[in-house]
Amino acid sequence: MSLYEVSIPTFLLTLRNLKAILEKAVAHAEARKFDPNVFASQRLFPDMLPLNRQVQIASDAAKGAAARLSGTEPPKFEDTETTMAELIARVSKTIDYLQGFKPEQFDGADDRIVTVKTPRNEFNFKALDYVRHWALPNFFFHVTTAYALLRHGGVELGKVDYLGPVPHL
Amino acid sequence: MSLYEVSIPTFLLTLRNLKAILEKAVAHAEARKFDPNVFASQRLFPDMLPLNRQVQIASDAAKGAAARLSGTEPPKFEDTETTMAELIARVSKTIDYLQGFKPEQFDGADDRIVTVKTPRNEFNFKALDYVRHWALPNFFFHVTTAYALLRHGGVELGKVDYLGPVPHL
Repeated sequence: MSLYEVSIPTFLLTLRNLKAILEKAVAHAEARKFDPNVFASQRLFPDMLPLNRQVQIASDAAKGAAARLSGTEPPKFEDTETTMAELIARVSKTIDYLQGFKPEQFDGADDRIVTVKTPRNEFNFKALDYVRHWALPNFFFHVTTAYALLRHGGVELGKVDYLGPVPHL
Repeated sequence: MSLYEVSIPTFLLTLRNLKAILEKAVAHAEARKFDPNVFASQRLFPDMLPLNRQVQIASDAAKGAAARLSGTEPPKFEDTETTMAELIARVSKTIDYLQGFKPEQFDGADDRIVTVKTPRNEFNFKALDYVRHWALPNFFFHVTTAYALLRHGGVELGKVDYLGPVPHL
């Protein structure tokens, strides 16, 4: 098993699910004849981040992990999305980026030291700790918060939308 | 790298963080002189599960994964928790259970077929798919929803409470 196998396929499946969830939110608004883009600026609580930031940060968590683990630079996405169509395109762009990685680009990733800069600190992690304690928890946090925010906004979603088509035998 | 390494330490760190988050919610209520146990039955939306179920399901996701990957039977927890003290104890009990596992109990886990019964279906997964596409996403979903629910209920929490003390160099 490699760090590729426990990160990229997870990001990809969940990002596809997130895209479908955003599309359901658009359909929900259209059926009720309100502007779907209202969702993009909705928040669960006044000092929590709005939907567009949740989606952008989930995207950053995924592309940052792919880049750091393969020793490359992530593309900079400008975080300008304010409509649902733009957010869906952001997720698609992230999926396209991740699909470009081959497992062998992660060879030796286990021995990498990953540096993460936060607004107040800089952390150096062993690659495994970075994946299991930083990248994955962060990624799922923002996807789940996006889900919860839309669910709280009345969109009919269930766990199956979040888990998506899990490969099984 | 083994399936132990990408599941059990993640569950343990996040469960410890969840316990601290629940304790912060109790302190928040006590400081404002309202009954902390009100939180246990709060929901983000009427047809979403309340906090006590979110915590119970996160616990089940973690203990179910540990048991299935090691070829053992998970202990049955009765899901009777209705107070914050009981929910904190449930998390502690789950932590104790997970701490009892040794990495070598997961030897050969990669080749296991994991069966999961849902109310409507039964799925057989390759162990890796079960971990990366089922157990971890489910676990983080319920922990994040518990966090969002308390955050929405006014408890002062930040991402650092959710990520906790990530091991770094």
